[in-house]
Amino acid sequence: MGCTAAQLCFRCDSLSSFGRLGASKQPFPGCFLSLDKSSESGGRAPREQDLLLAAAYVSDAQYNRNIPFETSPQAIRLYYFYNHWTMQAATYFFICIDLSLALFEEPALFPLPFLATSIVEVLCLTAFLGRLVHFAKVTPQMVFWKDTKNICIMLTIVLTLIDLIVYGSLEAVNIHSVRWSRALRPVFLINFPESRQIRRAFRSIRNTLPDILYVFLLFLFSVLMFSLMALKLFGDRGLKTVEGSPYFTNILDIAFELYVLVTTANSPDVMMPAYDFNGWYSLYFITYIIINTYIFMSVFLAVVYNNYRKHLKNEIRKLAYLKRHKMIEAFNLLKVQVGTEFVVKEAQWRRLAKVVAPDISSSHLELLLRVSDEGQKGHVDKMNFLRLADLLNIQVVTINIKRHPLEAWMPRVYQSSASLLVQRMVRHRVFVWVYDVIILVNAIFIALDERNPFISYAEWLFLSLYIIEILLKLYTYEPRSYFGRRQFWNWFDVLILIAALVATVANTTIQSARKYSSQQILDIVLILRILRLLRVIVSIERFRVIVTTLINIGPAMLTFGGLVLVVYYVFAIIGMEAFHSKVQFFDPNFTAPDALVCGNPALKDSAFARNRYCKNNFNDLASAFILLMELTVVNQWHVLAGGFALVTHQAAKLYFVGFHIVVVILIVNIFIAFILEAFFVAYSLEKSEVETAIEKKIQELGVGIQEEAVQDGKLVDNMDTRDSGFSGDDGDNKRKALKGLYFRIASKKYRTVDALLQQMFESEIAPEDEGPPLDEILNFSPSDICPKNPSFENSA
Amino acid sequence: MGCTAAQLCFRCDSLSSFGRLGASKQPFPGCFLSLDKSSESGGRAPREQDLLLAAAYVSDAQYNRNIPFETSPQAIRLYYFYNHWTMQAATYFFICIDLSLALFEEPALFPLPFLATSIVEVLCLTAFLGRLVHFAKVTPQMVFWKDTKNICIMLTIVLTLIDLIVYGSLEAVNIHSVRWSRALRPVFLINFPESRQIRRAFRSIRNTLPDILYVFLLFLFSVLMFSLMALKLFGDRGLKTVEGSPYFTNILDIAFELYVLVTTANSPDVMMPAYDFNGWYSLYFITYIIINTYIFMSVFLAVVYNNYRKHLKNEIRKLAYLKRHKMIEAFNLLKVQVGTEFVVKEAQWRRLAKVVAPDISSSHLELLLRVSDEGQKGHVDKMNFLRLADLLNIQVVTINIKRHPLEAWMPRVYQSSASLLVQRMVRHRVFVWVYDVIILVNAIFIALDERNPFISYAEWLFLSLYIIEILLKLYTYEPRSYFGRRQFWNWFDVLILIAALVATVANTTIQSARKYSSQQILDIVLILRILRLLRVIVSIERFRVIVTTLINIGPAMLTFGGLVLVVYYVFAIIGMEAFHSKVQFFDPNFTAPDALVCGNPALKDSAFARNRYCKNNFNDLASAFILLMELTVVNQWHVLAGGFALVTHQAAKLYFVGFHIVVVILIVNIFIAFILEAFFVAYSLEKSEVETAIEKKIQELGVGIQEEAVQDGKLVDNMDTRDSGFSGDDGDNKRKALKGLYFRIASKKYRTVDALLQQMFESEIAPEDEGPPLDEILNFSPSDICPKNPSFENSA
Repeated sequence: MGCTAAQLCFRCDSLSSFGRLGASKQPFPGCFLSLDKSSESGGRAPREQDLLLAAAYVSDAQYNRNIPFETSPQAIRLYYFYNHWTMQAATYFFICIDLSLALFEEPALFPLPFLATSIVEVLCLTAFLGRLVHFAKVTPQMVFWKDTKNICIMLTIVLTLIDLIVYGSLEAVNIHSVRWSRALRPVFLINFPESRQIRRAFRSIRNTLPDILYVFLLFLFSVLMFSLMALKLFGDRGLKTVEGSPYFTNILDIAFELYVLVTTANSPDVMMPAYDFNGWYSLYFITYIIINTYIFMSVFLAVVYNNYRKHLKNEIRKLAYLKRHKMIEAFNLLKVQVGTEFVVKEAQWRRLAKVVAPDISSSHLELLLRVSDEGQKGHVDKMNFLRLADLLNIQVVTINIKRHPLEAWMPRVYQSSASLLVQRMVRHRVFVWVYDVIILVNAIFIALDERNPFISYAEWLFLSLYIIEILLKLYTYEPRSYFGRRQFWNWFDVLILIAALVATVANTTIQSARKYSSQQILDIVLILRILRLLRVIVSIERFRVIVTTLINIGPAMLTFGGLVLVVYYVFAIIGMEAFHSKVQFFDPNFTAPDALVCGNPALKDSAFARNRYCKNNFNDLASAFILLMELTVVNQWHVLAGGFALVTHQAAKLYFVGFHIVVVILIVNIFIAFILEAFFVAYSLEKSEVETAIEKKIQELGVGIQEEAVQDGKLVDNMDTRDSGFSGDDGDNKRKALKGLYFRIASKKYRTVDALLQQMFESEIAPEDEGPPLDEILNFSPSDICPKNPSFENSA
Repeated sequence: MGCTAAQLCFRCDSLSSFGRLGASKQPFPGCFLSLDKSSESGGRAPREQDLLLAAAYVSDAQYNRNIPFETSPQAIRLYYFYNHWTMQAATYFFICIDLSLALFEEPALFPLPFLATSIVEVLCLTAFLGRLVHFAKVTPQMVFWKDTKNICIMLTIVLTLIDLIVYGSLEAVNIHSVRWSRALRPVFLINFPESRQIRRAFRSIRNTLPDILYVFLLFLFSVLMFSLMALKLFGDRGLKTVEGSPYFTNILDIAFELYVLVTTANSPDVMMPAYDFNGWYSLYFITYIIINTYIFMSVFLAVVYNNYRKHLKNEIRKLAYLKRHKMIEAFNLLKVQVGTEFVVKEAQWRRLAKVVAPDISSSHLELLLRVSDEGQKGHVDKMNFLRLADLLNIQVVTINIKRHPLEAWMPRVYQSSASLLVQRMVRHRVFVWVYDVIILVNAIFIALDERNPFISYAEWLFLSLYIIEILLKLYTYEPRSYFGRRQFWNWFDVLILIAALVATVANTTIQSARKYSSQQILDIVLILRILRLLRVIVSIERFRVIVTTLINIGPAMLTFGGLVLVVYYVFAIIGMEAFHSKVQFFDPNFTAPDALVCGNPALKDSAFARNRYCKNNFNDLASAFILLMELTVVNQWHVLAGGFALVTHQAAKLYFVGFHIVVVILIVNIFIAFILEAFFVAYSLEKSEVETAIEKKIQELGVGIQEEAVQDGKLVDNMDTRDSGFSGDDGDNKRKALKGLYFRIASKKYRTVDALLQQMFESEIAPEDEGPPLDEILNFSPSDICPKNPSFENSA
């Protein structure tokens, strides 16, 4: 595959005869000069190894990976292996296994002997260690040992092993101890380099802490001051709560009640005895709520949001500069000199792109080359080269228009006027609307009582209507493209139809003798049938916009899923150790007196038992997670806290308050900050510069498809949206080869907040700006980018 | 007071002999030229009337009033009268009277006969009409009749009169009807020109509505879809709620329950029966909560916040241009030509300032003149003139350093080393800390049981410590400045000390025989004693910053108070008409069976009665407001709604759902948006340009005081911060007169979000930019200012 200097020179020669050098009419001195210079400056015809290294840089830039790796050929190959999806999948697989062990350990949902779980755990630890050793081989020694992530993982492995040994030996002599190292398991999820997003969220929280601490102290001060007032105002009035216990007599109880009031969970109840006693006392509570619930909670959100924005900008700036840095490294490896400027030859560029994205179709590659090499000069200059990572990130769909098989089979019938009328009818907007109405009417029928025979007959009618719809569509549109890869809603329709058919048949046959197992399947089918209503949303433009925005920020929301998982896991493990088996759930039909107090006499007459919260317990991981979810929703959390305090100790309330502070005050606020930011960014920017460049080129080449037409479903149903591999790789027949195909920019997948912000920031870095040196980039702090002179635009 | 051309020319003459015209060595041609030209261009030596008109413009600019008024001398005089504080106070007085009538009308807190309230109401209406007529005289006819505000007021007056007559005549024949016009009363509060802030908040809501409507519809759709699923999944399982009623069998009930779940008010309870039946069903509720509670509610906040920002910016831009417009009008009225440029003469400028701010001290005026007339040329140029409104808005405090009376009386003793030691001790930081600790220890003693004799003795000890503190401070600092106008904390200390003294004495004397009336006073004194703890916050720097920010946005928060008042009032009147006397509150000691069901058998076994919510009713305005406050806090609102639905009709729930949508989804979100914005603006800007100019001038003149020194309390206690009127009005002894005084910029009062944003925007308008024409300004729409190319800085 080697590209020799002679070849290069030949191309350079042929280029200069009609390219921009041709204008200067010099007998190719630039060409020879370039070879001379490049060998002088250490540049040469790039070797295979340089290409691999450059590809590694570009790939890192494309996926925003920031792993410093050694540049020896062996290390690069190891690095490729390290980044291979199988390795990453394996790591996540072992992390999942490790985390899910809690399902099988005491207190377990599905108990397994300690020996079994500990063997699996040791297996997982070995895998993690292997991954770490692999990483150590890739990265320079210095960097490896300075990285706290690696130290964390190693420490956690050692601690877990110690805990396993201690617990196992104690268990052997029948002493029950605590498996404390289980709470450390999320460390693996956080600290592997792949979980960058979760780490960033944690960093965001850590950075917010100092600022929020002072507000929190002030808030606590305020709560305590109000507690003192409450004690003096209500303490010796002899008031009673609804349950008949004394009202506001103990300062600690008052402080807890008032903290609960901040979360609004005991809102009117805590006020009622005082309010019943004297109407004016309501002023005390109203003041308290305005100050502590409304103002302080808003200030928490403001502080969290402000920090989130500040640090987000800093991270984005860091990422953008690192990306630029990597692309420049890659460019420097591959550059040759043509005339006065350094460029990357077309052939090199092609090979690089093929290495970075092995699955790329030739036509797609051709398109990207046209965008990068605007003047078709046979080489890509530095500015265009730097865009490569962004270009590769944009998903371009190659569309192939095909004829309907019926048209090929019996063209006369298919093209007859009756047939054309049917086709036009199906393509018409009203067809969609009619079926929207049918779906809505069906929803009403679903809501009605299905034991009415008329209703169950109607169900058959709806089913046949849906079958007719799909048949009509298959008649009008090309079947292969109807079931194309990206035609989510078509697949959805057909699947639901089949499910509904099965469900209706099953329902009528087993109507009389219902069994539990079949009922669960029926439930799922039923839900799917109702999900069909979603179709209606998609046909209303304004709704589609909102849903699209929500779907766009969906992947980033998963980051919060990871974050919440980590926090929940730690709290669940602690909770299971502290509270398991204290509260028992009995079947509702079980009428023993124990069932009413959740099997624990301490809960007699408690709100916990009265509300029948017995199933909200820490007896296994799944229950613990559901309980923590309920605590996140906040309402009635004080009843749950009170219940667990009764069966253990009043100090148990601290666990619940701690959970509230961490999850509700920090994480939920960061989640809200994230959604706010995502919406603002989505509002303020529509299309990136690079996307625009590609789209312009697509239009220029006349191979574009109007996106509106696609969204209206007029064209897309006729198209097969696969990445067609077409043979024309030679420069001459490019145009011809491109002719038969249509492109469009398919996915808004990378339109996440991060990507949008990064694009914005990058468009503000001048193309020739190489950014600060690497060390400096890594040490960016958010205060650097605070605007010195805030302007009206960016403040409001 | 007329200023003749001759006088002006004389000044011009004398100025030009040493001013900048002197440099050109021409025999004052500019001076005569100026008079010629100005008479040519319609300008002349400004008449008294022009001065008044200009002053009206400047005053409007200063207070951001936007009332178009006629420029005839009579109209201007009426306009001054219209803006006079007594007229505004009278208007608000009548508005308050009108609104508070609801306290005396059936259902009343303090019942008055219908005749009395209706006479007062007619009186109020007359006052409003008078105000409106006054306004009509001031403003051009065209503008008056095009303004919907005026139409609204007139319509409301007419409707109220009709309602009064109809109700009165029906009452006369003993037919009870509904006083529906009472719900219209807040119209007066909103529509008088003074309530600009409240109107803006309402406009903000109105502008948000279209955007939020689609999200809301989508949200409703989602709730209904989930309701349908719930009906099918749980409807025929035969499950029972804790209260034993059937669970999820009716689609309307389910939809209501699920709407309540969005507000989290019935969070785990609504899930428990299904969860107890089968653990997997929790997935349904978790999905529901994530989608509807977390995502949709965040999207509501995002939409509201985004609109709030957009419209805020638009309004600010409008205000800034209008202000500029008015200042230019004022300038054009007063300008005379000097040399090539138009200027305002010093004498005119002084007279203008005196008319606009009659209470301004001479020294303050002198300072402003120095800032405006940088080169002491005897006139103010256009650019500096335009700043006048801002200059007048900045509060400058004139500080007068005085000697301690003891020092004057017995200098030897006061200056003795022992006395100086005491003074140094008191001024020392540690002195403050010691007293902070004493206050905290006192707080602990307050928390302890006061029936313990040791504790009540300790109270005397603390009292004497506080007396010693105040005496020491009075000894060290000048007493008149210690009780200066702005020494809030000193007044606070002394008042609390006196209150505590009275309270302790009273407490010990009436310890045994407590009476109700004395108890209430004791309560207030007790609260004041605990409020002393606030002192501790003020001495910790980080806390002070947060508190200062909160206090700064305090006045603007009052706008929300007005907004909430309007909405509460309307809902309270409707609620009182619909639900009064349905629920009765009985004294807690009253043990009749009726008391347990709030006097209404329909409430038997309801959660409303079980929770003893009887006092949460609509039987008078105060109770209604407290109930609405509880609904705003959200928790248990479904229990309240359920109770009132039981005593009337299920449709009553719509009233509560409507209240939730209006108050919680719209107003509370706008409140949060406001706090977020206020915090961001407060973070991003510290000092305005104009303030900086004044401060620079103060420093230049050597009459400044370091603000840090003031905050440390080192200097301020020695100063009397009154606006001293000093005699030196003549140019020659200005410097001398300024010598004995110190200035500082006192108040951050105008550092509101609005003011800050307006300053930011104004600093971006070029000084020579006269802005678009008036019509265009009034029709600004937020979409005009959407940045075409959003930048990284302003998006994140």
